[in-house]
Amino acid sequence: MKITVLSGGVGGARFLRGLRSHLAAADPAAEVTAVVNVGDDMWLSGVRIAPDLDSIMYTLAGENDEVRGWGRVGESERVSAELRAYGVGWPWFTLGDLDIGTHLARTSMLRDGLTLAEATDRITARWDLGVRLIPATNAEVETHVVTADGETMHFQEWWTRHRAALPATAFVHRGIENATPAPGVLEAIDDADVVLLAPSNPVVSIGPIVAIPGVRSALAAATARVVGVSPIISGAVVRGMADACLTAIGVETAADAVAVHYGSRASGGLLDAWLIDETDAALLPAIKAAGIAARAVPLWMRDPATSAALARDALAIAAAL
Amino acid sequence: MKITVLSGGVGGARFLRGLRSHLAAADPAAEVTAVVNVGDDMWLSGVRIAPDLDSIMYTLAGENDEVRGWGRVGESERVSAELRAYGVGWPWFTLGDLDIGTHLARTSMLRDGLTLAEATDRITARWDLGVRLIPATNAEVETHVVTADGETMHFQEWWTRHRAALPATAFVHRGIENATPAPGVLEAIDDADVVLLAPSNPVVSIGPIVAIPGVRSALAAATARVVGVSPIISGAVVRGMADACLTAIGVETAADAVAVHYGSRASGGLLDAWLIDETDAALLPAIKAAGIAARAVPLWMRDPATSAALARDALAIAAAL
Repeated sequence: MKITVLSGGVGGARFLRGLRSHLAAADPAAEVTAVVNVGDDMWLSGVRIAPDLDSIMYTLAGENDEVRGWGRVGESERVSAELRAYGVGWPWFTLGDLDIGTHLARTSMLRDGLTLAEATDRITARWDLGVRLIPATNAEVETHVVTADGETMHFQEWWTRHRAALPATAFVHRGIENATPAPGVLEAIDDADVVLLAPSNPVVSIGPIVAIPGVRSALAAATARVVGVSPIISGAVVRGMADACLTAIGVETAADAVAVHYGSRASGGLLDAWLIDETDAALLPAIKAAGIAARAVPLWMRDPATSAALARDALAIAAAL
Repeated sequence: MKITVLSGGVGGARFLRGLRSHLAAADPAAEVTAVVNVGDDMWLSGVRIAPDLDSIMYTLAGENDEVRGWGRVGESERVSAELRAYGVGWPWFTLGDLDIGTHLARTSMLRDGLTLAEATDRITARWDLGVRLIPATNAEVETHVVTADGETMHFQEWWTRHRAALPATAFVHRGIENATPAPGVLEAIDDADVVLLAPSNPVVSIGPIVAIPGVRSALAAATARVVGVSPIISGAVVRGMADACLTAIGVETAADAVAVHYGSRASGGLLDAWLIDETDAALLPAIKAAGIAARAVPLWMRDPATSAALARDALAIAAAL
């Protein structure tokens, strides 16, 4: 079976880890491709940062910091301290030393003329991830946030420096109209037996992926079923600050509202089916009324076992359609 | 008094530290400008390395590793280990974490459009160095080595990876014919009361500086006396592998041979005077015969006191001319 997962960072990483765990027993021959958001990427102090690609890689490699919830385990910040002492960079953006190793490896490859997808292939080859990671695009389509007072800033500045607390009115994926999917992205959608939308931020993780010209039409034309997993449980985000993003684009922070935002594939949207949490079971009729199959299952990825069960449930609803 | 010092890395750094120490008592109002070689600079993993500028900065800041003889004290190599694990970079080239902080600060500024001289001003502002550092040029004129078997490689590869053990036939300062001195370099020479050539590698440290179009003629026209300090004592290099460089260009590893290589200013060369070590006193007549004033003094910079005494001797011979 070929499974393609559209994914953001930490939530996507945990979902992919659960999927890999589930498949190890259920279908060891399955091939999983993760199409990863690059809207959070940026140049910082001359190096190329790709937070979502790295979060997924570290998590699948078992190198992520489970306690902190992001970055590398056993991290240190000696380089960052130097940068601050020189008055360089964004003092509020943490660059771990091990993480900088990844950034510099990537940057070196990009400077040598490799595409981001080629660099990602080389960088991920260090570990046996069991999942192929493809950036959604090789283009630099960074997400910027327009705030209520008319300022525009890089998503990372809004998210990390301002903790998503500045009211936002729009998210702009700069240059995305001229971007093309990275090699392998459309093929991964075309050839998939199942396409999954990870429980990632709908606005700034899944949003930028499907906004790349060609991706939405590939999803519409895919023979695979497209199943999404809600990032919202009981009217709240599981992690991160996706609620601030949803509010900015006028979508309620609710599992059914996100499904309606994605839309039914039958009506030109993205979804054949949508998984919500058991606590949100009352929302099932509203989702089904929008033309989207739905099930309520345990959605919290508390540990590898619950993450694997969630992946199993996502595949099960696809098979049942 | 205005003193301008043409300088390479570690030898130059110790000499400058000694000069600063001497002047603190002898002439606190003196202004010292170091014109620093950039031929060793390179792009590595997307960051700009400037070994001579950094060696001098760390030494004058008291942040250098005295035991190892180069780099930052208290250094670690976590980023480097990551780069090696990703198969990136030059595995034989050590990039310390603290050092990478400096490289990234510089790279960030260069990417922002600053010149190397402007970046150097900002970076050195972190510490009270007591010496103004100016890169010899803002241009990227990296030194490459042609080996006896016809291969060409970056100086750092020849020096660090091959420990200068591959017979060399030539040193090429790529693009130097189109380089211009950094702003302030010619002024520092024109306005100086004394110009000193630090006991740095004549071929790959002092050589690239005076090969920048305009520098040699500025030295020729300077009202200041130009005094050099021999990097050779008793027919051997004080540190490093300058002998391999001298051999490659057909100059004997001897204090008088280097003086003759630099040449007398009266005959279109660089030097008014040349300091050699006491143990080389027998070479004084040969140097004077070349039209260069000379003195034999204690040349080993064993500690701050001997370094300060050497700087005092260099200024003394200039004053006596």
